[in-house]
Amino acid sequence: MLLEINRPSFLIKYLSSETSDEWIKLAISNPLEILIDHAHCERKAAGFAIQLMFRYPSEQDLAEVLSPIAREELEHFEKILYFLKDLGHGLRTLKPPPYGTELTKSIRKDEPNRMLDSFLIAGLIEARSHERLSLLALNSENESFKVLYQSLLESEARHFGIYWKLAKTKFSRNKTFKRLEELSKIESDILSQTYYEPRIHS
Amino acid sequence: MLLEINRPSFLIKYLSSETSDEWIKLAISNPLEILIDHAHCERKAAGFAIQLMFRYPSEQDLAEVLSPIAREELEHFEKILYFLKDLGHGLRTLKPPPYGTELTKSIRKDEPNRMLDSFLIAGLIEARSHERLSLLALNSENESFKVLYQSLLESEARHFGIYWKLAKTKFSRNKTFKRLEELSKIESDILSQTYYEPRIHS
Repeated sequence: MLLEINRPSFLIKYLSSETSDEWIKLAISNPLEILIDHAHCERKAAGFAIQLMFRYPSEQDLAEVLSPIAREELEHFEKILYFLKDLGHGLRTLKPPPYGTELTKSIRKDEPNRMLDSFLIAGLIEARSHERLSLLALNSENESFKVLYQSLLESEARHFGIYWKLAKTKFSRNKTFKRLEELSKIESDILSQTYYEPRIHS
Repeated sequence: MLLEINRPSFLIKYLSSETSDEWIKLAISNPLEILIDHAHCERKAAGFAIQLMFRYPSEQDLAEVLSPIAREELEHFEKILYFLKDLGHGLRTLKPPPYGTELTKSIRKDEPNRMLDSFLIAGLIEARSHERLSLLALNSENESFKVLYQSLLESEARHFGIYWKLAKTKFSRNKTFKRLEELSKIESDILSQTYYEPRIHS
């Protein structure tokens, strides 16, 4: 049982709220389910990057950064698969929390707003994943889980940086910051509605 | 101008027909367009593998082989991007030939037939790509293009082998061979209908 909650020494400034103690306790008490859910998150993050490459098929600058992101997410997905396998477990379907579906509803339909929102939402998901993997790395009760999360979390921060840079390169600074602030609030609101299953984004 | 057509010393036994001289001549006369089209093919092949991972999210054995396929396709996609960039070119949208859309119409809607057909069609596309990249490696008039195609073509054959093994592992030998024969004829029929744009699968 988790007696004391450790939090990282940094705050992720683009997130409007910190993860609650409740989430940390629920996650730490369900290490396997959280890890399987995270495998699905890595797969979905790869899918999202590829989806953007399909939506803007002739934007070379996008392709140059999205393709390596997708590859790295898939590498992590495979790393978790083999980690689970070594423990005698494997992938299984988990009911996803409303997070992804709710967040993507905020993507505006008209271009170029659709592109800006897609970058920012992908970035926010990476930032939140970074925060939560940091919490798992600090608080997991099993050393091998700590080491695994530690090895995964840095790239989530880097991916956030890449999406953020894409947004700032293609859109005005003012427009980008203003929209990030709006979406960041929406992201925090979604997470504030309790979802009682242990998920990375519950 | 291409004076003499070189063909590989092997025949790909799962394909019902060999590529025509006409295709080779059209492809060799349009090296840049064919290469850009091939970049899109690598992207689409990664997308197809990931789509299968999304359709069967808890099948660990699938995930273990599809995720590395998708990563390798993306690596090749990036390799072509930088090759094009060095030549002063980049990605651009090309009208795709009917090949992919027509072929995927043959995927039956009911499981497990849908899974079998998906493996076999993915495999046939890889086999055809292998054949055509071999022709491009043999006949391209520019040495750097030859070298590039040579470096890409082996993995297409390996990917065919992986999809074929997946099919044989999950379905009876008889059922798998019978369906491959049907789909292979469909694949050749689609290519026999002339499409006058230089594309990997025209």
